[in-house]
Amino acid sequence: MVDNLFKNLPDTLDEEVFEDLLTGNNVRVERILSHGQTTPRGEWYDQEQHEWVILLKGGARIGYDNGREISLEAGDHVNIPAHCRHRVTWTDPQQVTVWLAVFYDPAN
Amino acid sequence: MVDNLFKNLPDTLDEEVFEDLLTGNNVRVERILSHGQTTPRGEWYDQEQHEWVILLKGGARIGYDNGREISLEAGDHVNIPAHCRHRVTWTDPQQVTVWLAVFYDPAN
Repeated sequence: MVDNLFKNLPDTLDEEVFEDLLTGNNVRVERILSHGQTTPRGEWYDQEQHEWVILLKGGARIGYDNGREISLEAGDHVNIPAHCRHRVTWTDPQQVTVWLAVFYDPAN
Repeated sequence: MVDNLFKNLPDTLDEEVFEDLLTGNNVRVERILSHGQTTPRGEWYDQEQHEWVILLKGGARIGYDNGREISLEAGDHVNIPAHCRHRVTWTDPQQVTVWLAVFYDPAN
């Protein structure tokens, strides 16, 4: 019943890996592994749910469609409202980056 | 807008510190800092919400009212259903332990 977020991390990844850790009522917790991948140029995440995300290992940058860009290191967390268009502009190519994302419904 | 889970950790804590990082619709994300504290003997957490919790620094043990006890180290996560009586039986007295808990409503 106990699982570990950092166990069995691959040394390299051909593509990002998304894994649900929890699926609840109106909430989903997901582990994301990246290794140099970015959102393809011109593509955006535009999500129905809010996303609270924390980077726990590695490094990344997130860009918003207003041109702002933020850098994330281990422990950094940010809340991305539903339909706030964003993309991952950089992830560390030297190591696996581990994200933990909490997706949750906007208030009715 | 970016905050860090591990920033400004105190060297010592007289009591546990609970801080809401996110309060959403039916979901709450909380940071908990412990430093040797445990749930007082004979007391139990008996919660209305489910709790998905991950230990991100330090170490701890959780006991259940059926006598089972689990040890947690960095990265370990566990889901504790609502009304599953549990208590924290040990936290590392040598360093601050950082927990990240996601509380969410049972399905209606």
